[in-house]
Amino acid sequence: MTDTLSVYSAEHLHELGVRLFVACGAPAAEAELVAGHLVEASLMGIDSHGVVRFIWYVEQCLEGRIHPGAPVEIMRDKGHVALVDCGMNFGQIGAGKIVDLVRERAQKGGIAFATSRHCHHVGRLGAYPQALAEAGLFGFAVANSQRHGHFVVPWGGREGRLATNPLAWAAPTEGEPMLLDMSTSMTPEGKIRTALHAGQSMPEGRILDAEGHPTTDPNAFYGADGGPPEGAILPFGGDLGYRGFGLGLLVEVLGASIAGVELGEAEPIPYINGFSLLAIDPGAVTGDSARFAALTEELKAYITGTPPAPGSNEVILPGAREFRTLRQRQRDGIPLPAETCRLIAEVAARVQVRADL
Amino acid sequence: MTDTLSVYSAEHLHELGVRLFVACGAPAAEAELVAGHLVEASLMGIDSHGVVRFIWYVEQCLEGRIHPGAPVEIMRDKGHVALVDCGMNFGQIGAGKIVDLVRERAQKGGIAFATSRHCHHVGRLGAYPQALAEAGLFGFAVANSQRHGHFVVPWGGREGRLATNPLAWAAPTEGEPMLLDMSTSMTPEGKIRTALHAGQSMPEGRILDAEGHPTTDPNAFYGADGGPPEGAILPFGGDLGYRGFGLGLLVEVLGASIAGVELGEAEPIPYINGFSLLAIDPGAVTGDSARFAALTEELKAYITGTPPAPGSNEVILPGAREFRTLRQRQRDGIPLPAETCRLIAEVAARVQVRADL
Repeated sequence: MTDTLSVYSAEHLHELGVRLFVACGAPAAEAELVAGHLVEASLMGIDSHGVVRFIWYVEQCLEGRIHPGAPVEIMRDKGHVALVDCGMNFGQIGAGKIVDLVRERAQKGGIAFATSRHCHHVGRLGAYPQALAEAGLFGFAVANSQRHGHFVVPWGGREGRLATNPLAWAAPTEGEPMLLDMSTSMTPEGKIRTALHAGQSMPEGRILDAEGHPTTDPNAFYGADGGPPEGAILPFGGDLGYRGFGLGLLVEVLGASIAGVELGEAEPIPYINGFSLLAIDPGAVTGDSARFAALTEELKAYITGTPPAPGSNEVILPGAREFRTLRQRQRDGIPLPAETCRLIAEVAARVQVRADL
Repeated sequence: MTDTLSVYSAEHLHELGVRLFVACGAPAAEAELVAGHLVEASLMGIDSHGVVRFIWYVEQCLEGRIHPGAPVEIMRDKGHVALVDCGMNFGQIGAGKIVDLVRERAQKGGIAFATSRHCHHVGRLGAYPQALAEAGLFGFAVANSQRHGHFVVPWGGREGRLATNPLAWAAPTEGEPMLLDMSTSMTPEGKIRTALHAGQSMPEGRILDAEGHPTTDPNAFYGADGGPPEGAILPFGGDLGYRGFGLGLLVEVLGASIAGVELGEAEPIPYINGFSLLAIDPGAVTGDSARFAALTEELKAYITGTPPAPGSNEVILPGAREFRTLRQRQRDGIPLPAETCRLIAEVAARVQVRADL
């Protein structure tokens, strides 16, 4: 299944996103923020978390699962630790307020941690530690997902008990931040569905069939009836996958248990992502706020100066590829598959917005 | 190279460790703490970080690299963030004071982070978040190493730029804590040396030769002259090893850069581990200090209830295997290879201690 690509400017897609979310009832400033977040993900080449999400977000608004304009409220505030009720507004609104909160607290007192309740999809997780790094802070974020996303097996198991549970961290340098945004599983479910639709196999070591046997066949993951998956995804790490499992469990504990969220709270769906964010001010640690970026810059030079292995062109930092794509797509535009354009136009029509795609 | 094993009680080895470190000049209470740490690692089956380290620690004392009894001092204290000078005392002494510091601060204000300067080898990294979990807190620790331990390549590189950079986290349940203690590389160097001595191959996907080609031959890692390694170790993650590289870099940034430590400070050796520790009090987040352990207990049941995959007997939590070994070895004793006993006796004789091994 190949798909022709059309190219749109970030501005065009941003403006469309704003109109869509305003049509769903979002205040203009919040619609700007959500659209900006999704367009930035597309600019960075993280298309799975980019403007394609216009579709699902509008659907979720129409189904009453996202509550545009809902207040985000601090439920509990201990100064350096806080619990934030995101009110089932767009996840970016709650997570954005959490960024503001931990940034301000860490800038004052060196460190802050906040976690969430009733948080919808936060989108590109790396955006939040990145925002902290842009303010000179170290940032670390996790996002778990509710039970119906539990496709990932614990090490040695054959049924899913965790979601793909990403974690992300960022740190300032004197240039672009270092930025790692990774799943703790071997693959997102989306890639398996893409392979299914394309009639392709998955790489080895990604998925199990319904009986827990390794497979590369997407059909064996989804089962015969195309319903909810019968197979499962392996934790990150291949033959050392107990480590990836342990990292996935870290995300679960730090994203949900620490916020007081029960596993059983997953029905009826009260959240999408259990989102938590840590900020540390390196300037508070050493008393010299410029020193940290100077040292990470030195580290960057040391790392990127590594002679490449055979078959590799260069050694780059985590995030560098995404920042390159950002610059390229800011210049050349964002490519969208025809099918994505069609689905966006379709959902736009449901809220009386003309998509112009 | 097979080796006969002799079995000793934890008490016997603990008492020997205390005598060794006192003979090196350590105050009795500090010798107790270091010996206890190493014996516990052996009890848990983490033999590479157990009583075998009696040998190296005594040597390091004799060479003036460990300064027994040296004061551990808070260099900078911002309440929830601190920088601690470990004075090149045994790493366990500095790290132990950091545990006390962050535990107390987190219990008062919800969160604390401390990092180190001049810290020798901290031993089993998991011990520190575990101590926090035993006090009802969430704990997260990292330890980087100085430049001469940089055997691990950045993703796509052929020369080492990072150490095996472990990270560890722990959380309380109503029983044993969840405890993950993992390297961010595919193997510790020690396993390659063991394979070299045993004339065995390494598993696929662990190491590179001097030209950056994948190899399973330990000789290709160490090079012809048996000097410092010419090859390198791959970052954790197989074909997704850019993630393991990103985690290794996290450890570097959070273990060293954040403490203001320059890469160049590695010569002459001013530290062994750049150790940092984070504590969060889940009770401060939700206002209900029992809730977190109840939820992690529920999560434990959900995870360990996963049907095993073919070839697997059960699904266990990170750390569960080590706690089982701990109980078994507390009962049956700690097995030590004859060569380890011989080397401990040899180093003991240098400080006029009779080993009785």
